[in-house]
Amino acid sequence: MTLPHGEVQTPCFMPVGTQGTVRALSPNDLRAAGASLVLANTYHLHVRPGEDVVGRLGGLHRFMGWDRPLLTDSGGFQVFSLEGSRTVSDDGVEFQSHVDGSRRFLTPERAVEIQWALGADVAMAFDHVVPGGADEATARDALERTLRWLERGARRHAELKKGDGTQTLWPILQGGSHQALRLEALDRVLAIGPWTGLAVGGLSVGEPKAVMYETLEQLEPRLPPAVPRYLMGVGFPEDLVAAVARGVDLFDCVAPTRNGRNGTAYTADGPLNIRNAAHRDDPRPLDSTCDCETCTTFSRGYLRHLFAAEELLGLRLLSPHNVRYLIRLTAEMRAAIRSGDYERWTADWRRRYTQGETT
Amino acid sequence: MTLPHGEVQTPCFMPVGTQGTVRALSPNDLRAAGASLVLANTYHLHVRPGEDVVGRLGGLHRFMGWDRPLLTDSGGFQVFSLEGSRTVSDDGVEFQSHVDGSRRFLTPERAVEIQWALGADVAMAFDHVVPGGADEATARDALERTLRWLERGARRHAELKKGDGTQTLWPILQGGSHQALRLEALDRVLAIGPWTGLAVGGLSVGEPKAVMYETLEQLEPRLPPAVPRYLMGVGFPEDLVAAVARGVDLFDCVAPTRNGRNGTAYTADGPLNIRNAAHRDDPRPLDSTCDCETCTTFSRGYLRHLFAAEELLGLRLLSPHNVRYLIRLTAEMRAAIRSGDYERWTADWRRRYTQGETT
Repeated sequence: MTLPHGEVQTPCFMPVGTQGTVRALSPNDLRAAGASLVLANTYHLHVRPGEDVVGRLGGLHRFMGWDRPLLTDSGGFQVFSLEGSRTVSDDGVEFQSHVDGSRRFLTPERAVEIQWALGADVAMAFDHVVPGGADEATARDALERTLRWLERGARRHAELKKGDGTQTLWPILQGGSHQALRLEALDRVLAIGPWTGLAVGGLSVGEPKAVMYETLEQLEPRLPPAVPRYLMGVGFPEDLVAAVARGVDLFDCVAPTRNGRNGTAYTADGPLNIRNAAHRDDPRPLDSTCDCETCTTFSRGYLRHLFAAEELLGLRLLSPHNVRYLIRLTAEMRAAIRSGDYERWTADWRRRYTQGETT
Repeated sequence: MTLPHGEVQTPCFMPVGTQGTVRALSPNDLRAAGASLVLANTYHLHVRPGEDVVGRLGGLHRFMGWDRPLLTDSGGFQVFSLEGSRTVSDDGVEFQSHVDGSRRFLTPERAVEIQWALGADVAMAFDHVVPGGADEATARDALERTLRWLERGARRHAELKKGDGTQTLWPILQGGSHQALRLEALDRVLAIGPWTGLAVGGLSVGEPKAVMYETLEQLEPRLPPAVPRYLMGVGFPEDLVAAVARGVDLFDCVAPTRNGRNGTAYTADGPLNIRNAAHRDDPRPLDSTCDCETCTTFSRGYLRHLFAAEELLGLRLLSPHNVRYLIRLTAEMRAAIRSGDYERWTADWRRRYTQGETT
């Protein structure tokens, strides 16, 4: 996938830089982890520091010190999932800033304008997200609104792009847990297109995992083969492996950095909780198969000490390791796909990950 | 100054790695900042994770991932200044661990044995520290005890060193704010020697700054010229500049990392509080004269955003900048001393630091 700021190999895991920084990682850490595409949050950057400030400081790339591709989400997920009151109309969503309580109004046009000011390589269309358990009428209503919003957002984006802009806009497929709605969403979104990428949203929001797999399996044969598919907000190592088997190319999730801050490290032998007393005297690295700075420099014993002593260095050593783990995982999946071996590779990977010494 | 793990140019600022990590900095950050000597705390490492654990994990250098010189303090300052009950006898100090409340006993011999197990290049003798306002009788009593403890610690260190050890032990001069006691301390410490380094302790503990300067001025002509002088727990940029004029070679202080975590950055134009709203749109670096990664990559506006958004990256960008600032300051002082220009350099430095745009 070629984007204005560089090339992205798929499958690809995007670290999440919610507020214009991937928590506890510097841009150098991201480069060292092999990150090729980073996500930032339109909602968060809009409420603080504001897209005007980011624009005056040279745009999101310069602001963050990140010169490779960036993707911004539309804010839809945040305004529908964050705490606080909101009012949805066909025009848009009025919501309350979690920073200062001020009333804000986001429309499909504003979401596109904010992302244009931020200047990411890829912008996402503003969507209406419903919880995993939403009934069909609710999911239908949100889907219809998402489709109307998509047309408005795409129109505004095309206007902004008349100059020399290179940013592309991607739609988000909704439909909740209702497979017929998902398929209808796809047909109608493709009719509005063409698109350079397609996102599947509203999954991993409380529904059973089987629903996510079924949705992906249903969509897969109907998706345009050359257009990258982005499964939003996913996920854990096992989710990535399962979703790639179902045709997904792109992922984002806060789990590797959040888990890293909590002391959980992904390893080839399964997740490991570095706080456990068992690691106290252990001279081994977190993961002997990993090439990250944490694994090539520090022992489990030292990392456990950092967490026991509540030292900041602990957070910043586990978080980049977990990001590196997922990026290495995507590289392994790519190699397995190329060699036509994905199924056998998956079986081997899963056996070690679920039956390893750490689990 | 040549130590087992490398050469140290003086004047030298030692970043403080209290618990075996300089807060918010990785070993790579320390190397990038130009750190040549790092301090770790015997008291803290003894109570957690314990010198036995550090020893089993290969000693303090390997534990921390730091291959340049290390100095460990003796724990004297901590047991006399940390909260909690303690009982002082001539034998040693019984105190309560701040981690688990367990009763511990530190003697001059134990302090040396712990530091031997940690394996730093330089160990410090166990001393009895009194507050800045201690009367002469109290300071005399603590000084006599410190001298008796020095003899015992030196004897134990010599026994341990019979093999092939390269660690050296340095004494700490006490005497409170009483100049006659300080001079007596020096004479009696030198009589116990010879030493490869001498520390001045018990300053910067609440006494007026004039007392510190007077003490240094009195000691200076009587100190052996070839032996490095270490002023413990100091300090701020202006303290370093003033103390180097009075013959000091080595410093340690938590201020650069603690201030960095609070949003204060040292700059050529004086300290700057990055939280101030004035920095919101400012595209300039913290300090245009600085070559650190923070200053060459990020704007004040971005750094302010990180602190406003309580992002971890803010702490880890300001702390290494402040460490780099002090290390650059020592390099400038060294150059000024070599060119015989220290007084004029000091006047220029002070003018800009105290009258710069940020103050």
